[in-house]
Amino acid sequence: MSNEIKEWLKKVEAGELRAEEAYEQIKGYEDIDGFAKIDVQRVKRKGFPEVIYGEGKTAEQIQAIFSRLMTHHETVLATRISKEKAEQLVPQLVHVTYDECSRTLLYDERKSFRSYGKVGVLCAGTSDLPVAEEAAITAQAMGLEIARFYDIGVAGIHRLFDQLEQIRTCDVLIVVAGMEGALVSVVGGLVQQPILAVPTSIGYGASFHGVAALLTMLNSCASGVSVVNIDNGFGAAYQAALISRIKKE
Amino acid sequence: MSNEIKEWLKKVEAGELRAEEAYEQIKGYEDIDGFAKIDVQRVKRKGFPEVIYGEGKTAEQIQAIFSRLMTHHETVLATRISKEKAEQLVPQLVHVTYDECSRTLLYDERKSFRSYGKVGVLCAGTSDLPVAEEAAITAQAMGLEIARFYDIGVAGIHRLFDQLEQIRTCDVLIVVAGMEGALVSVVGGLVQQPILAVPTSIGYGASFHGVAALLTMLNSCASGVSVVNIDNGFGAAYQAALISRIKKE
Amino acid sequence: MSNEIKEWLKKVEAGELRAEEAYEQIKGYEDIDGFAKIDVQRVKRKGFPEVIYGEGKTAEQIQAIFSRLMTHHETVLATRISKEKAEQLVPQLVHVTYDECSRTLLYDERKSFRSYGKVGVLCAGTSDLPVAEEAAITAQAMGLEIARFYDIGVAGIHRLFDQLEQIRTCDVLIVVAGMEGALVSVVGGLVQQPILAVPTSIGYGASFHGVAALLTMLNSCASGVSVVNIDNGFGAAYQAALISRIKKE
Amino acid sequence: MSNEIKEWLKKVEAGELRAEEAYEQIKGYEDIDGFAKIDVQRVKRKGFPEVIYGEGKTAEQIQAIFSRLMTHHETVLATRISKEKAEQLVPQLVHVTYDECSRTLLYDERKSFRSYGKVGVLCAGTSDLPVAEEAAITAQAMGLEIARFYDIGVAGIHRLFDQLEQIRTCDVLIVVAGMEGALVSVVGGLVQQPILAVPTSIGYGASFHGVAALLTMLNSCASGVSVVNIDNGFGAAYQAALISRIKKE
Amino acid sequence: MSNEIKEWLKKVEAGELRAEEAYEQIKGYEDIDGFAKIDVQRVKRKGFPEVIYGEGKTAEQIQAIFSRLMTHHETVLATRISKEKAEQLVPQLVHVTYDECSRTLLYDERKSFRSYGKVGVLCAGTSDLPVAEEAAITAQAMGLEIARFYDIGVAGIHRLFDQLEQIRTCDVLIVVAGMEGALVSVVGGLVQQPILAVPTSIGYGASFHGVAALLTMLNSCASGVSVVNIDNGFGAAYQAALISRIKKE
Amino acid sequence: MSNEIKEWLKKVEAGELRAEEAYEQIKGYEDIDGFAKIDVQRVKRKGFPEVIYGEGKTAEQIQAIFSRLMTHHETVLATRISKEKAEQLVPQLVHVTYDECSRTLLYDERKSFRSYGKVGVLCAGTSDLPVAEEAAITAQAMGLEIARFYDIGVAGIHRLFDQLEQIRTCDVLIVVAGMEGALVSVVGGLVQQPILAVPTSIGYGASFHGVAALLTMLNSCASGVSVVNIDNGFGAAYQAALISRIKKE
Amino acid sequence: MSNEIKEWLKKVEAGELRAEEAYEQIKGYEDIDGFAKIDVQRVKRKGFPEVIYGEGKTAEQIQAIFSRLMTHHETVLATRISKEKAEQLVPQLVHVTYDECSRTLLYDERKSFRSYGKVGVLCAGTSDLPVAEEAAITAQAMGLEIARFYDIGVAGIHRLFDQLEQIRTCDVLIVVAGMEGALVSVVGGLVQQPILAVPTSIGYGASFHGVAALLTMLNSCASGVSVVNIDNGFGAAYQAALISRIKKE
Amino acid sequence: MSNEIKEWLKKVEAGELRAEEAYEQIKGYEDIDGFAKIDVQRVKRKGFPEVIYGEGKTAEQIQAIFSRLMTHHETVLATRISKEKAEQLVPQLVHVTYDECSRTLLYDERKSFRSYGKVGVLCAGTSDLPVAEEAAITAQAMGLEIARFYDIGVAGIHRLFDQLEQIRTCDVLIVVAGMEGALVSVVGGLVQQPILAVPTSIGYGASFHGVAALLTMLNSCASGVSVVNIDNGFGAAYQAALISRIKKE
Repeated sequence: MSNEIKEWLKKVEAGELRAEEAYEQIKGYEDIDGFAKIDVQRVKRKGFPEVIYGEGKTAEQIQAIFSRLMTHHETVLATRISKEKAEQLVPQLVHVTYDECSRTLLYDERKSFRSYGKVGVLCAGTSDLPVAEEAAITAQAMGLEIARFYDIGVAGIHRLFDQLEQIRTCDVLIVVAGMEGALVSVVGGLVQQPILAVPTSIGYGASFHGVAALLTMLNSCASGVSVVNIDNGFGAAYQAALISRIKKE
Repeated sequence: MSNEIKEWLKKVEAGELRAEEAYEQIKGYEDIDGFAKIDVQRVKRKGFPEVIYGEGKTAEQIQAIFSRLMTHHETVLATRISKEKAEQLVPQLVHVTYDECSRTLLYDERKSFRSYGKVGVLCAGTSDLPVAEEAAITAQAMGLEIARFYDIGVAGIHRLFDQLEQIRTCDVLIVVAGMEGALVSVVGGLVQQPILAVPTSIGYGASFHGVAALLTMLNSCASGVSVVNIDNGFGAAYQAALISRIKKE
Repeated sequence: MSNEIKEWLKKVEAGELRAEEAYEQIKGYEDIDGFAKIDVQRVKRKGFPEVIYGEGKTAEQIQAIFSRLMTHHETVLATRISKEKAEQLVPQLVHVTYDECSRTLLYDERKSFRSYGKVGVLCAGTSDLPVAEEAAITAQAMGLEIARFYDIGVAGIHRLFDQLEQIRTCDVLIVVAGMEGALVSVVGGLVQQPILAVPTSIGYGASFHGVAALLTMLNSCASGVSVVNIDNGFGAAYQAALISRIKKE
Repeated sequence: MSNEIKEWLKKVEAGELRAEEAYEQIKGYEDIDGFAKIDVQRVKRKGFPEVIYGEGKTAEQIQAIFSRLMTHHETVLATRISKEKAEQLVPQLVHVTYDECSRTLLYDERKSFRSYGKVGVLCAGTSDLPVAEEAAITAQAMGLEIARFYDIGVAGIHRLFDQLEQIRTCDVLIVVAGMEGALVSVVGGLVQQPILAVPTSIGYGASFHGVAALLTMLNSCASGVSVVNIDNGFGAAYQAALISRIKKE
Repeated sequence: MSNEIKEWLKKVEAGELRAEEAYEQIKGYEDIDGFAKIDVQRVKRKGFPEVIYGEGKTAEQIQAIFSRLMTHHETVLATRISKEKAEQLVPQLVHVTYDECSRTLLYDERKSFRSYGKVGVLCAGTSDLPVAEEAAITAQAMGLEIARFYDIGVAGIHRLFDQLEQIRTCDVLIVVAGMEGALVSVVGGLVQQPILAVPTSIGYGASFHGVAALLTMLNSCASGVSVVNIDNGFGAAYQAALISRIKKE
Repeated sequence: MSNEIKEWLKKVEAGELRAEEAYEQIKGYEDIDGFAKIDVQRVKRKGFPEVIYGEGKTAEQIQAIFSRLMTHHETVLATRISKEKAEQLVPQLVHVTYDECSRTLLYDERKSFRSYGKVGVLCAGTSDLPVAEEAAITAQAMGLEIARFYDIGVAGIHRLFDQLEQIRTCDVLIVVAGMEGALVSVVGGLVQQPILAVPTSIGYGASFHGVAALLTMLNSCASGVSVVNIDNGFGAAYQAALISRIKKE
Repeated sequence: MSNEIKEWLKKVEAGELRAEEAYEQIKGYEDIDGFAKIDVQRVKRKGFPEVIYGEGKTAEQIQAIFSRLMTHHETVLATRISKEKAEQLVPQLVHVTYDECSRTLLYDERKSFRSYGKVGVLCAGTSDLPVAEEAAITAQAMGLEIARFYDIGVAGIHRLFDQLEQIRTCDVLIVVAGMEGALVSVVGGLVQQPILAVPTSIGYGASFHGVAALLTMLNSCASGVSVVNIDNGFGAAYQAALISRIKKE
Repeated sequence: MSNEIKEWLKKVEAGELRAEEAYEQIKGYEDIDGFAKIDVQRVKRKGFPEVIYGEGKTAEQIQAIFSRLMTHHETVLATRISKEKAEQLVPQLVHVTYDECSRTLLYDERKSFRSYGKVGVLCAGTSDLPVAEEAAITAQAMGLEIARFYDIGVAGIHRLFDQLEQIRTCDVLIVVAGMEGALVSVVGGLVQQPILAVPTSIGYGASFHGVAALLTMLNSCASGVSVVNIDNGFGAAYQAALISRIKKE
């Protein structure tokens, strides 16, 4: 921000820009009826447009924000969209796809697909699929190729070993696991890829809705593991995209 | 208890025993100065004599209880004995050995060693040794052969695989691990032996003094795992001894 | 695993097996539509076939996995099956029984029943029955004889004493209790059998959905107690089966 | 308070008291150097004089408060007095006794002892003694006879049964236990006396400094149990005294 | 128990009783279809018959237990009975009353009412009524007179002061409060009656379903307070009854 | 209170008031059918009339309390009123408005609006609106002007900077945020206004229903921040009103 | 910030300032050896200079920061300074005062004292003094008059009532309490002043180092209470100063 | 692993290797006196040699492991080495450097430094330096260039803005913060670099030894943030190295 301010100051000094005009360029957001402020500059700052978090918003609010974003970007993503809201939204928003498993709503009008890299999405059990798919769909929307390795938990560890060769062809790994989440440590001991660990709320009793898996991952004895919030497939994919982009720059 | 009472009632009925005598036999403990009641019947009920838990007791109290037990049994064990207390106790109690690593005090005058079975003691890292050794020394005192497999955590999983053949020769396994405790799930996926999992307080930050490892083990996706308290090497060994004894009966 | 690898290497060296063939034998799982990998070797590693955990899986996924397992094994078990899913599944899977209390789905075509031992299932109160029955049905599926001792909580401790004689005839005990879970410590003080303690989520307020009972059991002053996850009747039964099998080997 | 105010108002109305005088009588405390306000009316409201909680106070502050109370009452008690502070205080305060085990400081110049009732103090293990003794000494200072039943935990339950007859002669019971605290439920199932349960911080790992025992006691399946704070022997004794006094009124 | 055993032994010795007969008298419970064991001796041990805890039991199970208890006692109480279950049960069990606010089911055929004492039931706010009423109805069933002091929380403390005179006429007080539960400390500072504190789950956010109130009560700076589980109006009333009975004995 | 008592005493002494009359004036509440005590003096003590907390009360109870308060005050507010209860209440209580977003019920018959000051209500995201609006409507009912700054979370921090000038014209700020609640620290670093921080339960996984935001706010490295309960928009507004009133006095 | 940027832009546009000069003025901090950046503009933004938090800093670091601040401001405050560090620092920093009870280090060279208002500091018990004094000394350094009301906890509530008249003369109240912290609710029910509640870590067992008091205060049924971190006397005083300043503006 | 096994099998098949030789190559670790197993293949699997975690190991154990690693690698790192242990170790291990602030022990005999990328290490306050330096020294040992941005917490947010230009020149960012940890969200909203967030245990009261900062970071509303354990500077640096290496490949 500091050097942008410097540049604006210099342009004003040089008479290239009026003070008011310079200021308008910093502002960079659009207000929707007082309840939301669309951050249209985010794509400049983060490399990707704003993503809509659907929980706690009404279908009306989501629709207003989503359609506004569609006027600015060729890809728009909303996560945590319940089936009920999707049924309201899909007819209203043209060219939009709803995926029930991952609860995502995607508008994707990219002409060509430029790949930033390949992310491997691993999950421990079939029950972890919704979170793994949220990660996969987000990553794809953000320009990554996806390789899926599902149901390879450590209770049958040979299923993992059999896929190691494939797993090692990826740039980054997203490892999704609930219950005790031990898959992360085992994979972490075997590969050189940075691992983004996603604990899920799958389990019961002393899994405490994902806390057990979260703690496992934070305390992993294997190195090269960093962690996102419970069930946050989206966040892992976003981080994977930022990481992959380094490579391409 | 019920059938013992029946038997006593019958003996009294048969005139073989007087009521007062029968009662004295049920009582089954010795009082030490009001502060402790030695459970001399425990060996009958549990198969092993009472073990002294050293924490929160003064050296004087431990000495009194220990020496009283020595008059009844050929093996007496005390756990959680600090080095300071041991320095006071060892000169007072003849034929007693103190092990600093496991903080145990052992009196062992068994003429011959009858093995109830073989227990494998596995630990993830060198820092887990004190707990692993508490388990090993307890198990030995209770009549088990010990096989040690130390520093085989999942960050270098081939160290475990290399020992699997040996591990599978044991009757029961005690798996000791701190941090995220993932070793338990990996071993649990590979062997048929019942696993007694011991979380340790090794770790920092979100390990919460062993809670992370405890939750991992309680939520293990591998079957055949049951868990004891954090740092409770003693408890795992005791359970291993009870399990092994089934086999020999 | 290590000695298996050695053996494969040796067979290949000896020309008995081609490299590719050896490799195929290690793999040992079947993939179902990408969402699940059936671990067909588990029966070799653990002595029992894979068991399906029903929560978080759709009825369609359960059916696909269940019927695949039926082609490999004469006993197939699924736990945590809601009544709704059962109503969908039972008509599809022939020779399958659903038990509403324990929420288990069982396929059992064993010709003869070879008993590995006898497990006593104890529970504190009538409200703990669903967990106790999950344990009982699992244990039976795994080849154990069952003795049930229900509603013998410590508020009326003579109900326990009256059954002690019977309880002592078992090889292993599963003790199921909610609220404060004190039954475990009392039984643990009286018997020589290894105890697998199962806290239940029965209770309210400061029971914290089973945490109070879990902590009680982990801190039991009685020895010979190890613990499984809250409401995990299945896990206790599995461990009981592994323990009992030692005896028979 | 309301009827006292009414009475003061009436006395003033009747001209028996001046408004200022009436007000002085309500105030009812003495200020010590701004840092403490001695509640000299507490004996009237609660039946016993104020007791000093020693933790977080300097020896100087304790001495000032203690000696002021000695001018008003024939019994003064301070709890949680470390050995270091006691060494400073005992020489300064004449006729005062320090008990190291319970960490209490007592001034007791009662001419005669009027008993309000008999309290039984039970504890599970020798390590619980300091808390049990804090209860016993407090109860005695408040006019109760004490019967001690120490080291009768449920791991050797016959030690409890042997004392039941004696225990049932008490008016109220204080049950002190650490670790899993199961003693409370067992006693609660067997007696008619109201039980004041005191969890102690004795234990390790998942005892969480007394939380496990606290939860056990709050969730006790036995009725007639109410609970005080962890290690709060004082509070249990105070409540026992209030309960016993009902009987005598 | 011990002296009863002694007496049985003596009677058998004296030939007054046969061994089998003596044993039958100790047993003291009735089995219902394996799922429940009615503790018919509880009235002898605790002074009151067994009370049914309704949660987690089916209406069928409750009916079976309730009607069996009706054959033994003139008062039978069940708590935590949902409106749905009550609608099933009331038509089946004659002479039974259901109270929706307190969720209790009561059978009361006492010819005369012998009062053991008077309990004051105080509650902080109108939202705490269900718990307060569970206490009141239980206390009444157990032979106490009830005085209700509702909605006197400390936000308007004069409402409490106005009732103090009445409150001080009770033998025991039950103080019910949610949110921060400060009412307990204020009352505790003003009266000589033993206080049974009942935290309620009323509140939101950082009240954590009653934990905030529970901690307040356990840490009360006022003396003469002991605590029961969150929302446990029943438990407080039971303890109040035991305490009151001392007085009458 | 003390000086009021003094004054009453003096008036009685002077014969201006009879003792009974003086007492009646202290009492200051009205009883509704035993279940509620309306605190009619609260407006004198706190400057605002009592506000009804709707949760845990039946519609009938709310209606009774609300209409009683309407006879005393020209503004009556009830919070946490569900849509269902509102549908019952609005037809019964004339001149009352229900706001669905904030779940408030307001009766406001003020002839003129005297402003005590201006409060800025900031919120991080659109999902925080219900809590922000509870604050705004409460503040308005209590005589504050409101400036709303919504959806200005730190993920797009320029949205905040753009509004800083406006924000700095307020007297007090209420900052509402869920998830990690970082907005509070950022605003706190930039302004001189006292900040009342309101964590919301918006978020998932390790947000633990608002605990993450609560902890953030309590630990804020910026000064001039104090915190209210999770989702407690009402409480923040009340405090803002008290603070603003100082200025006007 | 936004309007400052506007102004800079305008000044540059007007040729009053060069771009570089304008930029230098925004920067506004001084770097000390890379380890600290003194925020010399804080006094402009917040009204008070930066305060040093002593914990986790070496005496050398504190000295460097403290003396640098002394060159800018006539009042410099450091909190959480241990006695050991103070002994190193006081000789180095002239005109500085160390207060052992509150652990503060103060440099105060104000020529005259301009009062922004009067803050009442209340505390429940003598053990809470260190936190209360941290508040008092901070408040004084920030230009407030202090009225102290110590040891007025609710166990002897008349001590509070006696001081109410005085308390009501303050502009803002800081209420400091440990254990169950009920004092806050009682004061909150009686006064119109905004209350800043400070939980302290005084207590034991289930006080959980101040968590019990923190929860009490967050859930207070009295309105007009906002809360700061446990033991954060400094933070409460800072907020009190910001609030008081509103009045004077 | 799977393809390595395939290759070994093929080599054996081809007669290039004997079965025993192939097996020896898989083993890949060295045993030290039974207490440790040096993972000499880690550099092959992870790209970096094993790093020693010093806590819970004796100086003797560390020395043995450290010197063995020195025979294999030109860089050896040990973390969490206390000053006491360092004083024992440094004289024994030649060419080794101890850094007191970060508590690291480093042996670095690299001939040339090949940079994998540039990591920015940001920290909020001076008290966070030890963790930030652990990260910096680890990153340097793993081949990264370091840019330090210290003491730029959000209480003085312009300190951050002034450095943004520099920060944006890095490949990856490590953001270290204690207390409420809001710095992570602010930086995350402004940059495109992947952020590795490290909560520190700096703070008091409701910071719960770093839990508050950990939760803040897990719930960050800014995208592109993943988190490591509390105080785990090492882990963040390791992950940064893996990420940077992608770029160079």
